[in-house]
Amino acid sequence: MKLVESVPNFSEGRREKVVQAIVDEAKKYDGVWVLDWSMDPDHNRSVVTMIGKPEVIVDALFDMAKKASEIIDLRHHRGEHPRMGAVDVIPFIPVMDMSMDEAVELSKKLGKRIGEELKIPVYLYEKSATKPDRENLANIRKGEFEGFFEKIKDPEWKPDFGPEEVHPTAGVVAVGAREYLIAYNVNLATDNLSIAKKIAKAVRHISGGFRYVKAIGLELKEKGMVQVSMNLTNYKKSPIFRVFETIKREATRYGVNVVESEIIGMVPFQAVIDTFMWYLQVNEFDISRVIEYKILDIFSKEIDEK
Amino acid sequence: MKLVESVPNFSEGRREKVVQAIVDEAKKYDGVWVLDWSMDPDHNRSVVTMIGKPEVIVDALFDMAKKASEIIDLRHHRGEHPRMGAVDVIPFIPVMDMSMDEAVELSKKLGKRIGEELKIPVYLYEKSATKPDRENLANIRKGEFEGFFEKIKDPEWKPDFGPEEVHPTAGVVAVGAREYLIAYNVNLATDNLSIAKKIAKAVRHISGGFRYVKAIGLELKEKGMVQVSMNLTNYKKSPIFRVFETIKREATRYGVNVVESEIIGMVPFQAVIDTFMWYLQVNEFDISRVIEYKILDIFSKEIDEK
Repeated sequence: MKLVESVPNFSEGRREKVVQAIVDEAKKYDGVWVLDWSMDPDHNRSVVTMIGKPEVIVDALFDMAKKASEIIDLRHHRGEHPRMGAVDVIPFIPVMDMSMDEAVELSKKLGKRIGEELKIPVYLYEKSATKPDRENLANIRKGEFEGFFEKIKDPEWKPDFGPEEVHPTAGVVAVGAREYLIAYNVNLATDNLSIAKKIAKAVRHISGGFRYVKAIGLELKEKGMVQVSMNLTNYKKSPIFRVFETIKREATRYGVNVVESEIIGMVPFQAVIDTFMWYLQVNEFDISRVIEYKILDIFSKEIDEK
Repeated sequence: MKLVESVPNFSEGRREKVVQAIVDEAKKYDGVWVLDWSMDPDHNRSVVTMIGKPEVIVDALFDMAKKASEIIDLRHHRGEHPRMGAVDVIPFIPVMDMSMDEAVELSKKLGKRIGEELKIPVYLYEKSATKPDRENLANIRKGEFEGFFEKIKDPEWKPDFGPEEVHPTAGVVAVGAREYLIAYNVNLATDNLSIAKKIAKAVRHISGGFRYVKAIGLELKEKGMVQVSMNLTNYKKSPIFRVFETIKREATRYGVNVVESEIIGMVPFQAVIDTFMWYLQVNEFDISRVIEYKILDIFSKEIDEK
């Protein structure tokens, strides 16, 4: 069964009823499953994690975007997290039996509908981006809702879909396909923050490290340790085991050991298997050789036949 | 969803129609899924791999045993593999949301029915064994079909269920719960067989190695390598990563490197995750944090609700 994940972000993190109404739009659909949703009152933002069949999830996300544009008014929105729309960003992540190209197609299909039917300007980002400077979401979001009324007039920032005018209450939205993002931390047996910072610098892309690693050094006061805190934005190309081994090696340079590492949130099965294969030096192994995956495959087919 | 695996062995590996008829008995049931079945003409034996809901799989296995006892006649059976019954052995392996105790209960339930309704003597083995010398299947099977007519008279070998007389054509059967068995090989960068044999001796239980490891040294002539070929009979207690690391260390003692390792057949998800956690020094991680497992969980519930 083809399955795609989406993690739409909405600019409402305080009024539960509002977020619930948006989530309910997704729950109407057979073939879409809401895994989780959470609100952050400081950011005044909510995040919904859902998976679904490609043909259905686009409809569900459209209905959620429509609902959000009706009940969230950006003119009255305050919160710590930068934002530019009632529905702020809608990523598509291939999960099962799907290529990145297919996820890109979905993002364009949804973007087109949001632009044309809801009259909200849409920017395609990451793998769906139509220009290099739209790959990075932060670039698109610069200026936020308030600044977009000017920004959109710049021909460089003509939207990919929809009107060339910011929606008065719902702003603009970014839609795109991307790889699964893994939040990953490594804790060191020292309270010397400068060591974590040096190691973060060694592994992160921006300062010469791995292409798909973002990293900072942090203090964990209660634990008396420091942490290299990371986002791995493409676990296939900058894999978790290589990043871990590099950090371990860098730490010994300072006479420090790695205490533990932490996976935050969810992780794709393939990332676990890649790590298993690398350490055990297994050359041939396929995800379908894992019994639970075989069961998932059988159950997918049964659900498809319903 | 509670799911259990069973891998019943039948004493027929040449006449496809016979095996097909047995497999069809399982396919009648909703809640039982046949993953695979294979026949070995030299062994004159077939192996069916199936998973199912606990309440249903017992019925399916009973019907398969009944059918086998009707269409296989051990008096005319010849083959390389030792055997004692038309249905020779029926293991239960907990797969999802199930404890070993529950699997033991299932084996007893099935054993009781086979004994009482089919009049076939049943021996409980492995985790279901009622005496220590019945834990090892090879111990029970000693003497095979032909020898059992005498063996069963020994009070030591009174069956756990069923008559105290061998079924004239269907023999006797072993039923029991056990852990998942992983077939695992490590290939070494040498053609010196004695090194593989020494390492096999170092890691296997019988000669002082790990409690749940069976190992032999083999030559891989086409590859110009030697292999430590293993069965890991309890990957939770003698884990794959520890066995691998020990082999790697032993090999360096002889100036030899590990070229690769191989997983043969299927592997449980937890064994992959345990390896992932150990190498990355992850202390807290749960299988439900893997996105595909979460999907499996959702799909299980949908199928349950049907």
